[in-house]
Amino acid sequence: MNVTAFTVLDIPLIKPGDDLAGIIHENADLEERDIIAISSTIVSKSENRIISLNNIDVTGKAQNIAKNNGSDPRFVQAALNESTEILLESPFLLVRIKNGSICVNAGIDRSNVEGKDNILLLPEKPDRSAREIKDRFFELTGYKVSVVIIDTNGRAFRCGQTGAAVGIAGIKPTVDWRGTHDLFGNVLEVKNEAVVDEIAGFANVLMGEGNGGTPVAIIRGLDLYSEKGSMKDINRPGHEDVIREAILKSRSV
Amino acid sequence: MNVTAFTVLDIPLIKPGDDLAGIIHENADLEERDIIAISSTIVSKSENRIISLNNIDVTGKAQNIAKNNGSDPRFVQAALNESTEILLESPFLLVRIKNGSICVNAGIDRSNVEGKDNILLLPEKPDRSAREIKDRFFELTGYKVSVVIIDTNGRAFRCGQTGAAVGIAGIKPTVDWRGTHDLFGNVLEVKNEAVVDEIAGFANVLMGEGNGGTPVAIIRGLDLYSEKGSMKDINRPGHEDVIREAILKSRSV
Repeated sequence: MNVTAFTVLDIPLIKPGDDLAGIIHENADLEERDIIAISSTIVSKSENRIISLNNIDVTGKAQNIAKNNGSDPRFVQAALNESTEILLESPFLLVRIKNGSICVNAGIDRSNVEGKDNILLLPEKPDRSAREIKDRFFELTGYKVSVVIIDTNGRAFRCGQTGAAVGIAGIKPTVDWRGTHDLFGNVLEVKNEAVVDEIAGFANVLMGEGNGGTPVAIIRGLDLYSEKGSMKDINRPGHEDVIREAILKSRSV
Repeated sequence: MNVTAFTVLDIPLIKPGDDLAGIIHENADLEERDIIAISSTIVSKSENRIISLNNIDVTGKAQNIAKNNGSDPRFVQAALNESTEILLESPFLLVRIKNGSICVNAGIDRSNVEGKDNILLLPEKPDRSAREIKDRFFELTGYKVSVVIIDTNGRAFRCGQTGAAVGIAGIKPTVDWRGTHDLFGNVLEVKNEAVVDEIAGFANVLMGEGNGGTPVAIIRGLDLYSEKGSMKDINRPGHEDVIREAILKSRSV
Protein backbone atom coordinates (compact mmCIF):
# COMPACT_ATOMS: atom_id res chain seq x y z
CA MET A 1 0.00 0.00 0.00
CA ASN A 2 1.33 3.39 -1.02
CA VAL A 3 -0.04 6.53 0.50
CA THR A 4 0.85 10.15 0.03
CA ALA A 5 -0.15 12.98 2.30
CA PHE A 6 0.34 16.69 2.11
CA THR A 7 -0.91 19.90 3.61
CA VAL A 8 -2.72 22.49 1.53
CA LEU A 9 -0.84 25.76 1.60
CA ASP A 10 -2.16 29.28 1.16
CA ILE A 11 -5.49 28.74 2.87
CA PRO A 12 -6.48 32.32 3.80
CA LEU A 13 -7.96 33.32 7.15
CA ILE A 14 -11.49 31.97 7.01
CA LYS A 15 -14.50 34.24 7.45
CA PRO A 16 -18.17 33.46 8.05
CA GLY A 17 -19.85 32.25 4.88
CA ASP A 18 -16.62 31.23 3.15
CA ASP A 19 -16.89 28.30 0.75
CA LEU A 20 -14.31 25.95 2.29
CA ALA A 21 -14.54 23.30 -0.40
CA GLY A 22 -14.05 25.97 -3.03
CA ILE A 23 -11.03 27.44 -1.27
CA ILE A 24 -9.43 24.01 -0.82
CA HIS A 25 -10.18 23.11 -4.43
CA GLU A 26 -8.46 26.28 -5.61
CA ASN A 27 -5.33 25.48 -3.62
CA ALA A 28 -4.96 21.72 -4.16
CA ASP A 29 -5.33 19.23 -6.97
CA LEU A 30 -7.85 16.82 -5.55
CA GLU A 31 -8.36 13.30 -6.80
CA GLU A 32 -11.15 10.76 -6.58
CA ARG A 33 -11.24 9.06 -3.14
CA ASP A 34 -8.92 11.55 -1.46
CA ILE A 35 -9.39 11.92 2.27
CA ILE A 36 -9.58 15.60 3.16
CA ALA A 37 -8.85 16.39 6.80
CA ILE A 38 -9.96 19.83 7.89
CA SER A 39 -9.35 21.53 11.20
CA SER A 40 -12.63 22.13 13.03
CA THR A 41 -11.37 25.67 13.63
CA ILE A 42 -11.89 26.79 10.05
CA VAL A 43 -15.17 24.92 9.70
CA SER A 44 -16.46 26.72 12.79
CA LYS A 45 -15.26 30.06 11.45
CA SER A 46 -16.98 29.52 8.12
CA GLU A 47 -20.15 28.75 10.08
CA ASN A 48 -19.75 31.85 12.23
CA ARG A 49 -19.48 29.90 15.48
CA ILE A 50 -17.56 32.72 17.18
CA ILE A 51 -19.22 34.19 20.22
CA SER A 52 -18.14 36.82 22.71
CA LEU A 53 -17.81 35.82 26.36
CA ASN A 54 -19.40 39.17 27.14
CA ASN A 55 -22.72 38.06 25.66
CA ILE A 56 -23.14 35.03 27.91
CA ASP A 57 -25.62 34.91 30.78
CA VAL A 58 -23.85 33.06 33.55
CA THR A 59 -25.92 30.76 35.80
CA GLY A 60 -25.14 29.86 39.40
CA LYS A 61 -24.12 26.41 38.27
CA ALA A 62 -21.44 27.79 35.98
CA GLN A 63 -20.27 30.12 38.79
CA ASN A 64 -19.81 27.12 41.09
CA ILE A 65 -17.95 25.03 38.55
CA ALA A 66 -15.71 27.97 37.64
CA LYS A 67 -14.88 28.50 41.32
CA ASN A 68 -13.94 24.80 41.63
CA ASN A 69 -11.77 24.52 38.56
CA GLY A 70 -10.39 28.05 38.50
CA SER A 71 -11.68 29.09 35.10
CA ASP A 72 -13.77 31.94 33.69
CA PRO A 73 -17.47 31.47 34.61
CA ARG A 74 -18.50 32.80 31.19
CA PHE A 75 -16.35 30.18 29.50
CA VAL A 76 -17.82 27.45 31.72
CA GLN A 77 -21.33 28.64 30.84
CA ALA A 78 -20.52 28.57 27.13
CA ALA A 79 -19.38 24.96 27.54
CA LEU A 80 -22.50 24.02 29.51
CA ASN A 81 -24.67 25.54 26.79
CA GLU A 82 -23.16 23.05 24.32
CA SER A 83 -23.46 20.04 26.63
CA THR A 84 -25.96 17.38 27.58
CA GLU A 85 -24.07 15.72 30.48
CA ILE A 86 -21.33 16.73 32.91
CA LEU A 87 -18.84 13.99 33.70
CA LEU A 88 -16.28 15.97 35.67
CA GLU A 89 -16.33 19.55 36.93
CA SER A 90 -12.82 19.67 38.34
CA PRO A 91 -9.83 19.78 37.79
CA PHE A 92 -11.23 20.28 34.29
CA LEU A 93 -14.72 20.36 32.83
CA LEU A 94 -15.43 17.11 31.00
CA VAL A 95 -18.79 16.99 29.23
CA ARG A 96 -20.82 15.15 26.66
CA ILE A 97 -21.71 17.58 23.90
CA LYS A 98 -24.89 17.60 21.85
CA ASN A 99 -23.60 15.30 19.10
CA GLY A 100 -22.73 12.64 21.70
CA SER A 101 -18.95 13.09 21.94
CA ILE A 102 -17.24 13.47 25.30
CA CYS A 103 -14.58 16.19 25.51
CA VAL A 104 -13.03 18.84 27.74
CA ASN A 105 -14.70 22.29 27.74
CA ALA A 106 -17.13 21.15 25.01
CA GLY A 107 -14.28 21.52 22.53
CA ILE A 108 -14.42 25.30 22.74
CA ASP A 109 -11.28 27.02 21.51
CA ARG A 110 -9.72 30.21 22.81
CA SER A 111 -6.68 30.03 20.52
CA ASN A 112 -6.62 31.10 16.89
CA VAL A 113 -9.66 33.31 17.41
CA GLU A 114 -9.43 36.99 16.63
CA GLY A 115 -10.73 39.48 19.14
CA LYS A 116 -10.35 39.69 22.91
CA ASP A 117 -12.97 37.64 24.78
CA ASN A 118 -14.02 35.82 21.62
CA ILE A 119 -14.27 32.05 21.68
CA LEU A 120 -14.90 29.50 18.98
CA LEU A 121 -17.52 26.76 19.37
CA LEU A 122 -17.31 23.46 17.50
CA PRO A 123 -19.48 23.23 14.39
CA GLU A 124 -23.10 22.84 15.49
CA LYS A 125 -23.58 19.54 13.64
CA PRO A 126 -20.12 18.37 12.56
CA ASP A 127 -21.34 15.42 10.46
CA ARG A 128 -23.64 17.76 8.58
CA SER A 129 -20.77 20.20 8.03
CA ALA A 130 -18.60 17.39 6.67
CA ARG A 131 -21.39 16.21 4.37
CA GLU A 132 -21.95 19.69 2.99
CA ILE A 133 -18.25 20.06 2.25
CA LYS A 134 -18.15 16.61 0.64
CA ASP A 135 -21.18 17.42 -1.54
CA ARG A 136 -19.65 20.72 -2.57
CA PHE A 137 -16.41 18.97 -3.60
CA PHE A 138 -18.48 16.64 -5.76
CA GLU A 139 -20.24 19.61 -7.30
CA LEU A 140 -16.93 21.29 -8.08
CA THR A 141 -14.89 18.30 -9.22
CA GLY A 142 -17.11 15.28 -9.80
CA TYR A 143 -14.89 13.43 -7.33
CA LYS A 144 -16.16 11.42 -4.41
CA VAL A 145 -13.96 12.27 -1.45
CA SER A 146 -14.00 11.54 2.26
CA VAL A 147 -14.07 14.46 4.67
CA VAL A 148 -12.83 14.25 8.25
CA ILE A 149 -13.21 17.33 10.44
CA ILE A 150 -10.64 17.13 13.23
CA ASP A 151 -9.92 18.60 16.61
CA THR A 152 -7.33 17.77 19.27
CA ASN A 153 -8.28 15.93 22.45
CA GLY A 154 -6.50 14.83 25.57
CA ARG A 155 -6.86 11.22 26.63
CA ALA A 156 -6.84 9.00 29.68
CA PHE A 157 -3.57 7.71 31.17
CA ARG A 158 -1.21 9.36 28.71
CA CYS A 159 0.11 12.88 28.43
CA GLY A 160 -0.39 14.95 25.36
CA GLN A 161 -3.19 15.45 22.92
CA THR A 162 -3.97 13.72 19.67
CA GLY A 163 -6.11 14.58 16.70
CA ALA A 164 -9.62 13.15 16.86
CA ALA A 165 -12.45 13.14 14.36
CA VAL A 166 -15.42 15.36 15.22
CA GLY A 167 -17.44 15.11 12.02
CA ILE A 168 -17.17 12.83 8.98
CA ALA A 169 -18.66 12.18 5.56
CA GLY A 170 -17.78 9.65 2.87
CA ILE A 171 -16.03 7.36 5.35
CA LYS A 172 -17.12 5.01 8.10
CA PRO A 173 -15.76 5.75 11.57
CA THR A 174 -14.52 2.21 12.15
CA VAL A 175 -13.38 -0.79 10.15
CA ASP A 176 -14.63 -4.02 11.63
CA TRP A 177 -12.05 -6.78 11.45
CA ARG A 178 -14.03 -9.10 13.71
CA GLY A 179 -14.78 -12.42 12.10
CA THR A 180 -11.77 -12.24 9.79
CA HIS A 181 -8.96 -14.68 10.43
CA ASP A 182 -5.49 -14.13 11.78
CA LEU A 183 -2.28 -15.50 10.29
CA PHE A 184 -2.94 -18.91 11.82
CA GLY A 185 -6.63 -19.21 10.99
CA ASN A 186 -8.02 -18.14 14.37
CA VAL A 187 -11.05 -15.86 14.17
CA LEU A 188 -10.30 -12.30 15.33
CA GLU A 189 -12.71 -11.43 18.10
CA VAL A 190 -12.09 -7.91 19.26
CA LYS A 191 -10.70 -5.83 16.43
CA ASN A 192 -12.84 -2.87 15.49
CA GLU A 193 -10.48 -0.20 14.29
CA ALA A 194 -11.35 3.47 14.71
CA VAL A 195 -9.80 4.57 11.43
CA VAL A 196 -11.22 8.09 11.42
CA ASP A 197 -9.46 8.92 14.66
CA GLU A 198 -6.24 7.36 13.40
CA ILE A 199 -6.49 9.50 10.28
CA ALA A 200 -7.36 12.58 12.34
CA GLY A 201 -4.25 11.97 14.44
CA PHE A 202 -1.98 11.74 11.44
CA ALA A 203 -3.56 14.80 9.85
CA ASN A 204 -2.83 16.61 13.10
CA VAL A 205 0.87 15.71 12.80
CA LEU A 206 0.86 17.05 9.25
CA MET A 207 -0.93 20.25 10.16
CA GLY A 208 1.14 21.30 13.15
CA GLU A 209 -0.16 23.85 15.59
CA GLY A 210 0.37 27.49 16.36
CA ASN A 211 1.00 30.12 13.72
CA GLY A 212 2.83 27.67 11.46
CA GLY A 213 -0.20 25.45 11.39
CA THR A 214 -2.01 24.62 8.18
CA PRO A 215 -5.67 23.69 8.62
CA VAL A 216 -6.11 21.26 5.71
CA ALA A 217 -4.33 18.00 4.89
CA ILE A 218 -5.00 15.56 2.07
CA ILE A 219 -4.34 11.83 2.42
CA ARG A 220 -4.31 9.91 -0.83
CA GLY A 221 -4.16 6.20 -1.53
CA LEU A 222 -6.20 4.70 1.28
CA ASP A 223 -9.31 2.89 0.13
CA LEU A 224 -11.72 3.92 2.86
CA TYR A 225 -14.50 5.61 0.89
CA SER A 226 -18.06 4.83 1.94
CA GLU A 227 -21.28 6.64 1.07
CA LYS A 228 -22.52 6.30 4.64
CA GLY A 229 -20.80 7.09 7.90
CA SER A 230 -21.52 9.13 11.00
CA MET A 231 -19.65 9.91 14.20
CA LYS A 232 -22.78 8.81 16.06
CA ASP A 233 -21.64 5.23 15.56
CA ILE A 234 -18.38 5.79 17.43
CA ASN A 235 -19.73 7.05 20.73
CA ARG A 236 -19.85 4.30 23.30
CA PRO A 237 -23.40 3.74 24.56
CA GLY A 238 -23.54 5.16 28.12
CA HIS A 239 -24.14 1.87 29.91
CA GLU A 240 -21.28 0.17 28.03
CA ASP A 241 -18.84 2.96 28.77
CA VAL A 242 -16.92 1.57 31.72
CA ILE A 243 -14.69 4.61 32.18
CA ARG A 244 -17.67 7.00 32.13
CA GLU A 245 -19.46 4.82 34.69
CA ALA A 246 -16.38 4.84 36.93
CA ILE A 247 -16.10 8.62 36.70
CA LEU A 248 -19.77 9.11 37.58
CA LYS A 249 -19.49 6.62 40.44
CA SER A 250 -16.37 8.31 41.80
CA ARG A 251 -18.27 11.59 42.11
CA SER A 252 -20.78 10.01 44.47
CA VAL A 253 -18.05 8.99 46.95
CA MET B 1 4.70 19.24 3.79
CA ASN B 2 4.79 16.14 1.62
CA VAL B 3 4.78 12.73 3.19
CA THR B 4 4.77 9.26 1.72
CA ALA B 5 3.92 6.09 3.56
CA PHE B 6 3.97 2.47 2.54
CA THR B 7 3.89 -0.98 4.01
CA VAL B 8 6.80 -3.36 3.64
CA LEU B 9 5.71 -6.48 1.80
CA ASP B 10 7.14 -9.98 2.03
CA ILE B 11 8.04 -9.90 5.71
CA PRO B 12 8.22 -13.63 6.54
CA LEU B 13 6.77 -15.19 9.69
CA ILE B 14 9.13 -14.04 12.42
CA LYS B 15 10.95 -16.55 14.63
CA PRO B 16 12.86 -16.09 17.88
CA GLY B 17 16.27 -14.55 17.24
CA ASP B 18 15.36 -13.11 13.84
CA ASP B 19 17.14 -9.89 12.88
CA LEU B 20 14.13 -7.62 12.31
CA ALA B 21 16.12 -4.64 11.10
CA GLY B 22 17.94 -6.87 8.65
CA ILE B 23 14.71 -8.40 7.33
CA ILE B 24 13.10 -4.96 6.91
CA HIS B 25 16.25 -3.61 5.24
CA GLU B 26 16.18 -6.50 2.74
CA ASN B 27 12.57 -5.76 1.81
CA ALA B 28 12.48 -1.96 1.73
CA ASP B 29 14.68 0.88 0.51
CA LEU B 30 15.14 2.89 3.64
CA GLU B 31 16.19 6.52 3.71
CA GLU B 32 17.71 8.83 6.29
CA ARG B 33 15.09 10.03 8.83
CA ASP B 34 12.46 7.47 7.85
CA ILE B 35 10.01 6.56 10.58
CA ILE B 36 9.71 2.79 10.79
CA ALA B 37 6.56 1.55 12.50
CA ILE B 38 6.71 -2.07 13.56
CA SER B 39 3.92 -4.18 15.02
CA SER B 40 4.77 -5.24 18.57
CA THR B 41 3.71 -8.74 17.53
CA ILE B 42 6.80 -9.37 15.44
CA VAL B 43 9.12 -7.67 17.92
CA SER B 44 7.77 -9.97 20.63
CA LYS B 45 8.18 -13.01 18.41
CA SER B 46 11.77 -12.11 17.58
CA GLU B 47 12.37 -11.84 21.34
CA ASN B 48 10.68 -15.18 22.01
CA ARG B 49 7.95 -13.68 24.19
CA ILE B 50 5.60 -16.59 23.46
CA ILE B 51 4.51 -18.58 26.49
CA SER B 52 2.10 -21.45 26.94
CA LEU B 53 -0.90 -20.96 29.20
CA ASN B 54 -0.23 -24.48 30.44
CA ASN B 55 3.01 -23.39 32.10
CA ILE B 56 1.44 -20.72 34.29
CA ASP B 57 0.92 -21.18 38.04
CA VAL B 58 -2.44 -19.61 38.78
CA THR B 59 -2.88 -17.78 42.10
CA GLY B 60 -6.14 -17.35 44.01
CA LYS B 61 -6.19 -13.69 43.00
CA ALA B 62 -6.17 -14.59 39.31
CA GLN B 63 -8.88 -17.20 39.93
CA ASN B 64 -11.11 -14.54 41.52
CA ILE B 65 -10.58 -11.99 38.76
CA ALA B 66 -11.20 -14.62 36.08
CA LYS B 67 -14.46 -15.61 37.78
CA ASN B 68 -15.56 -11.95 37.80
CA ASN B 69 -14.72 -11.10 34.21
CA GLY B 70 -15.35 -14.51 32.65
CA SER B 71 -11.90 -15.12 31.26
CA ASP B 72 -9.28 -17.87 31.50
CA PRO B 73 -7.55 -17.77 34.93
CA ARG B 74 -4.24 -18.68 33.29
CA PHE B 75 -4.57 -15.72 30.95
CA VAL B 76 -5.40 -13.43 33.88
CA GLN B 77 -2.35 -14.70 35.75
CA ALA B 78 -0.14 -14.08 32.74
CA ALA B 79 -1.41 -10.48 32.65
CA LEU B 80 -0.88 -10.02 36.40
CA ASN B 81 2.68 -11.29 36.04
CA GLU B 82 3.37 -8.38 33.65
CA SER B 83 1.66 -5.75 35.80
CA THR B 84 2.46 -3.41 38.67
CA GLU B 85 -1.07 -2.07 39.36
CA ILE B 86 -4.63 -3.22 38.77
CA LEU B 87 -7.05 -0.45 37.80
CA LEU B 88 -10.09 -2.54 36.90
CA GLU B 89 -10.77 -6.25 37.26
CA SER B 90 -14.14 -6.35 35.55
CA PRO B 91 -15.70 -6.21 32.93
CA PHE B 92 -12.14 -6.28 31.64
CA LEU B 93 -8.73 -6.38 33.28
CA LEU B 94 -7.10 -2.96 33.07
CA VAL B 95 -3.56 -2.80 34.44
CA ARG B 96 -0.40 -0.75 34.54
CA ILE B 97 2.41 -2.82 33.06
CA LYS B 98 6.03 -2.75 34.11
CA ASN B 99 7.08 -0.03 31.66
CA GLY B 100 4.40 2.29 33.09
CA SER B 101 1.74 2.06 30.36
CA ILE B 102 -1.88 1.33 31.21
CA CYS B 103 -3.63 -1.21 28.99
CA VAL B 104 -6.14 -4.05 28.92
CA ASN B 105 -4.84 -7.56 29.69
CA ALA B 106 -1.27 -6.21 29.89
CA GLY B 107 -1.28 -6.06 26.08
CA ILE B 108 -1.10 -9.84 25.81
CA ASP B 109 -2.15 -11.16 22.41
CA ARG B 110 -3.95 -14.40 21.65
CA SER B 111 -4.27 -13.72 17.92
CA ASN B 112 -1.53 -14.23 15.36
CA VAL B 113 0.23 -16.71 17.66
CA GLU B 114 0.91 -20.21 16.44
CA GLY B 115 0.03 -23.10 18.73
CA LYS B 116 -3.03 -23.81 20.86
CA ASP B 117 -2.81 -22.22 24.31
CA ASN B 118 0.13 -20.05 23.29
CA ILE B 119 0.01 -16.34 24.05
CA LEU B 120 2.29 -13.47 23.13
CA LEU B 121 3.56 -10.99 25.71
CA LEU B 122 4.60 -7.46 24.79
CA PRO B 123 8.36 -6.93 24.41
CA GLU B 124 9.92 -6.93 27.89
CA LYS B 125 11.40 -3.45 27.48
CA PRO B 126 9.85 -1.91 24.37
CA ASP B 127 12.04 1.21 24.33
CA ARG B 128 15.13 -0.99 24.50
CA SER B 129 13.77 -3.13 21.65
CA ALA B 130 13.18 -0.02 19.55
CA ARG B 131 16.66 1.28 20.29
CA GLU B 132 18.28 -2.02 19.34
CA ILE B 133 16.42 -2.04 16.02
CA LYS B 134 17.33 1.60 15.40
CA ASP B 135 21.00 0.91 16.12
CA ARG B 136 20.99 -2.13 13.86
CA PHE B 137 19.51 -0.04 11.01
CA PHE B 138 22.33 2.42 11.46
CA GLU B 139 24.85 -0.42 11.35
CA LEU B 140 23.31 -1.74 8.13
CA THR B 141 22.63 1.50 6.30
CA GLY B 142 24.34 4.43 8.00
CA TYR B 143 20.91 6.06 8.20
CA LYS B 144 19.45 7.57 11.32
CA VAL B 145 15.84 6.44 11.51
CA SER B 146 13.06 6.66 14.06
CA VAL B 147 11.49 3.42 15.27
CA VAL B 148 7.98 3.21 16.72
CA ILE B 149 6.79 -0.17 17.99
CA ILE B 150 3.00 -0.19 17.93
CA ASP B 151 0.08 -2.08 19.39
CA THR B 152 -3.67 -1.45 19.30
CA ASN B 153 -5.52 -0.15 22.35
CA GLY B 154 -9.10 0.62 23.22
CA ARG B 155 -9.89 4.03 24.67
CA ALA B 156 -12.31 5.80 26.95
CA PHE B 157 -15.67 7.07 25.65
CA ARG B 158 -15.28 5.94 22.07
CA CYS B 159 -15.75 2.57 20.40
CA GLY B 160 -12.99 0.92 18.47
CA GLN B 161 -9.29 0.59 18.92
CA THR B 162 -6.46 2.70 17.62
CA GLY B 163 -2.76 2.14 17.16
CA ALA B 164 -0.64 3.29 20.09
CA ALA B 165 3.11 3.49 20.57
CA VAL B 166 4.57 0.98 23.03
CA GLY B 167 8.28 1.55 22.47
CA ILE B 168 10.22 4.24 20.61
CA ALA B 169 13.71 5.27 19.60
CA GLY B 170 14.99 8.20 17.54
CA ILE B 171 11.85 10.22 18.17
CA LYS B 172 10.36 12.10 21.10
CA PRO B 173 6.92 10.97 22.25
CA THR B 174 5.44 14.47 22.19
CA VAL B 175 5.99 17.79 20.44
CA ASP B 176 5.52 20.70 22.78
CA TRP B 177 3.76 23.62 21.13
CA ARG B 178 3.27 25.46 24.41
CA GLY B 179 4.76 28.91 24.37
CA THR B 180 4.48 29.26 20.60
CA HIS B 181 1.97 31.73 19.26
CA ASP B 182 -1.31 31.23 17.50
CA LEU B 183 -2.43 33.00 14.33
CA PHE B 184 -3.33 36.11 16.29
CA GLY B 185 -0.28 36.28 18.52
CA ASN B 186 -1.80 34.69 21.62
CA VAL B 187 0.52 32.27 23.42
CA LEU B 188 -0.61 28.65 23.13
CA GLU B 189 -1.01 27.24 26.60
CA VAL B 190 -2.08 23.64 26.41
CA LYS B 191 -0.79 22.07 23.25
CA ASN B 192 1.52 19.15 23.82
CA GLU B 193 1.00 16.81 20.91
CA ALA B 194 1.51 13.07 21.32
CA VAL B 195 2.98 12.54 17.88
CA VAL B 196 4.16 8.96 18.43
CA ASP B 197 0.61 7.81 19.12
CA GLU B 198 -0.67 9.72 16.11
CA ILE B 199 1.96 8.03 13.97
CA ALA B 200 1.19 4.65 15.53
CA GLY B 201 -2.48 5.15 14.67
CA PHE B 202 -1.77 5.93 11.05
CA ALA B 203 0.68 3.03 10.78
CA ASN B 204 -2.13 0.84 12.10
CA VAL B 205 -4.41 1.99 9.26
CA LEU B 206 -1.67 1.18 6.77
CA MET B 207 -0.95 -2.23 8.25
CA GLY B 208 -4.49 -3.55 8.51
CA GLU B 209 -5.30 -6.51 10.70
CA GLY B 210 -5.97 -10.19 10.30
CA ASN B 211 -4.26 -12.38 7.76
CA GLY B 212 -3.95 -9.53 5.26
CA GLY B 213 -2.03 -7.51 7.78
CA THR B 214 1.50 -6.35 7.16
CA PRO B 215 3.56 -5.72 10.29
CA VAL B 216 5.86 -2.93 9.06
CA ALA B 217 5.08 0.51 7.65
CA ILE B 218 7.48 3.28 6.66
CA ILE B 219 6.55 6.94 6.92
CA ARG B 220 8.83 9.30 5.04
CA GLY B 221 9.02 13.08 4.97
CA LEU B 222 8.18 14.04 8.55
CA ASP B 223 10.98 15.81 10.37
CA LEU B 224 10.62 14.23 13.82
CA TYR B 225 14.03 12.68 14.36
CA SER B 226 15.55 13.07 17.81
CA GLU B 227 18.46 11.21 19.40
CA LYS B 228 16.59 10.98 22.70
CA GLY B 229 13.07 9.84 23.43
CA SER B 230 11.37 7.34 25.69
CA MET B 231 7.79 6.24 26.27
CA LYS B 232 8.40 6.86 29.97
CA ASP B 233 7.80 10.56 29.30
CA ILE B 234 4.30 9.93 28.00
CA ASN B 235 2.79 8.16 31.00
CA ARG B 236 0.78 10.52 33.13
CA PRO B 237 2.15 10.66 36.68
CA GLY B 238 -0.31 8.73 38.89
CA HIS B 239 -1.47 11.70 40.96
CA GLU B 240 -2.05 13.84 37.85
CA ASP B 241 -4.06 11.12 36.13
CA VAL B 242 -7.62 12.21 36.80
CA ILE B 243 -9.25 9.28 35.02
CA ARG B 244 -7.10 6.74 36.87
CA GLU B 245 -7.94 8.43 40.18
CA ALA B 246 -11.65 8.28 39.35
CA ILE B 247 -11.44 4.60 38.49
CA LEU B 248 -9.63 3.76 41.73
CA LYS B 249 -12.10 5.83 43.72
CA SER B 250 -15.08 4.19 42.05
CA ARG B 251 -13.84 0.78 43.19
CA SER B 252 -14.03 1.85 46.80
CA VAL B 253 -17.77 2.69 46.54
